[in-house]
Amino acid sequence: MEIEHYMQIAFSLAEGAVGQISPNPPVGSVIVNHGRVVGMGAHLRAGELHAERVALDMAGNDSVGADLYVTLEPCSHTGKTPPCTEAILQAGISRVYVSTLDPNPLVSGSGIQRLRDAGIDVQTEICADLARELYPPFFHFIQTKQPHVTLKTAMTLDGKIAAFSGHSKWVTSEQSRLDVHRLRHVHDAILTGSKTILHDNPLLTTRLPQGGLHPIRVVLDTHLSTPMTSQVIQNTDAPTWIFCGSTAPEERELNFLPYDHVEVFRMEKPAIIVSDILDKLGARGIMTLLVEGGSSVNASFLQADAVDRIITYIAPRLLGGTDSLTPIGGINPALMSDAKDFVFIKTEQLGPDLKVTAVPKGSDSNVHRTH
Amino acid sequence: MEIEHYMQIAFSLAEGAVGQISPNPPVGSVIVNHGRVVGMGAHLRAGELHAERVALDMAGNDSVGADLYVTLEPCSHTGKTPPCTEAILQAGISRVYVSTLDPNPLVSGSGIQRLRDAGIDVQTEICADLARELYPPFFHFIQTKQPHVTLKTAMTLDGKIAAFSGHSKWVTSEQSRLDVHRLRHVHDAILTGSKTILHDNPLLTTRLPQGGLHPIRVVLDTHLSTPMTSQVIQNTDAPTWIFCGSTAPEERELNFLPYDHVEVFRMEKPAIIVSDILDKLGARGIMTLLVEGGSSVNASFLQADAVDRIITYIAPRLLGGTDSLTPIGGINPALMSDAKDFVFIKTEQLGPDLKVTAVPKGSDSNVHRTH
Repeated sequence: MEIEHYMQIAFSLAEGAVGQISPNPPVGSVIVNHGRVVGMGAHLRAGELHAERVALDMAGNDSVGADLYVTLEPCSHTGKTPPCTEAILQAGISRVYVSTLDPNPLVSGSGIQRLRDAGIDVQTEICADLARELYPPFFHFIQTKQPHVTLKTAMTLDGKIAAFSGHSKWVTSEQSRLDVHRLRHVHDAILTGSKTILHDNPLLTTRLPQGGLHPIRVVLDTHLSTPMTSQVIQNTDAPTWIFCGSTAPEERELNFLPYDHVEVFRMEKPAIIVSDILDKLGARGIMTLLVEGGSSVNASFLQADAVDRIITYIAPRLLGGTDSLTPIGGINPALMSDAKDFVFIKTEQLGPDLKVTAVPKGSDSNVHRTH
Repeated sequence: MEIEHYMQIAFSLAEGAVGQISPNPPVGSVIVNHGRVVGMGAHLRAGELHAERVALDMAGNDSVGADLYVTLEPCSHTGKTPPCTEAILQAGISRVYVSTLDPNPLVSGSGIQRLRDAGIDVQTEICADLARELYPPFFHFIQTKQPHVTLKTAMTLDGKIAAFSGHSKWVTSEQSRLDVHRLRHVHDAILTGSKTILHDNPLLTTRLPQGGLHPIRVVLDTHLSTPMTSQVIQNTDAPTWIFCGSTAPEERELNFLPYDHVEVFRMEKPAIIVSDILDKLGARGIMTLLVEGGSSVNASFLQADAVDRIITYIAPRLLGGTDSLTPIGGINPALMSDAKDFVFIKTEQLGPDLKVTAVPKGSDSNVHRTH
């Protein structure tokens, strides 16, 4: 078999753990001894074994003289677990194939150096395309301390998300709505505005046939107007974090006290500033944030240049209506040239709908490449 | 070679003539004698030779015992030209391969019957997929006497066609804008509203590197407010047809008299009704109509159920703005379920943009199949 074949398996292992390992990035590893897979592993939960350690434990004595494939550079420093480089050396591995360097510039390359110094043959930049698909969100967090933001929208082919009344059930097909739940599963947190809570009263949990992880529910609610009867308060499946302005009424904050899963974050300014929110979420270990807002919340993220990726579900329907709602509202730009440029990176048919993924122009080759 | 190989060539010939043969449908023909192409032809201009006749003339005596491929059933009645069935018989053709039956139910199948009665082996429904791509617009006209309507829109990924000021230069890339000129070339007429004339003052002609045919310019202008200084009046490259309401000021109509390429159509009602427009255009032999309107004109076509195809160019940009303009405006539907359902039939990347084609749900298999 080929190097890429085993690295692809390692990436599949890593992808399987996305959404459950924050604040760590996903990593997968495969050990091959003379053409026979003898160990496989992924990092499954923060604080537990790294991928290489899982694979080495499985391989046991078969790791002597074997090749180890890993999607991310092995760590050479003692964190919550001992350094993986030492475990690799002790296990008698002969060759190591790495896809991507550690995103932290302070330690990037040092794990590979440690292995090479000990006489191991190390090759890098294997399956760079898969790395560019998997890692940008996690590297973004490690480099900025803010979550990677995915804006999710669903609209008709004439750009409408709802009738002027706000009625929006449903823009897209069942297949697209199921896919949104997959998105929720792989994100640490989901964010919306109090207007959406008041109008649609969503649960914001993950409902998938085989179960899934619920993102932390984040509500932007300047004046603390979220009703106690809303589902994000009454349903305890996931934590609900409510961000309010500095002048939101104190007595309303008290109403939330009886709910253990609800936490109120009072900002320092009367208005909610997107970058302040991202700082606070980053400090709490939220690596990936899914924004499922209405026109106003989406606009504030766009205006703050805080959209790292947009996923748009387009339904083959035409609604019309001068006052129908569109995915992004907010202040009115004067010129078309005020638009922010993105690049399409993926287009898929999902049942009758299209699913389109785009990232800010210039960021599409943003993964930290090996050197 | 295979039957499909030659029929594909016949379709290429037919496609090459789209836009220049109204009110006839495009037809291509290939004649093959013992594995050697001996004749090729397309119907190139209304009133001139049909495709089969062009190919037979080229083949000369080589048509004896040969196979004739033709995209549409040969005519068996005398129209502007003598019936093609008789020419095929006289030329000594042995076998005839037909893709699609004549769309006119009164004569459909009679050409094939005539050939079979004369002892010729006829096979039908070859390359039905190519027929489904090429013929619906033309069959629509033949069956309804109204032009087939393609609505063309260009928007950002958040559904905007212009800033609230109306500024829209440019939503999409140069590649997409070039493609719009290709669309103009293959349509008999292009339609827009007087608001677009007043605001953007477009030429509405076809500008392509190797030249192209200009569609007839149709302007919906209830009160005859199109200025004499506008490009559609000053430029004489293509006819301009102005449709006005019954109560439009007579003296304004006189202003257009000096312009030979301009014709004013006064409707019977004070308001312009889409189906009345389509009737009049159909009566004048317009088979295919490209609507490049603003939000209001597009909305009136949608509301009249007169959109037979929509082609949307989506640019990877996000504009935002509560009052930014969207592709389809008009009266506000109360519910998302009031949207009209379409089916995506094609998605292409065009430079940085996406080009998405959709047709009304249920119409996607609408071509007249052979039986």
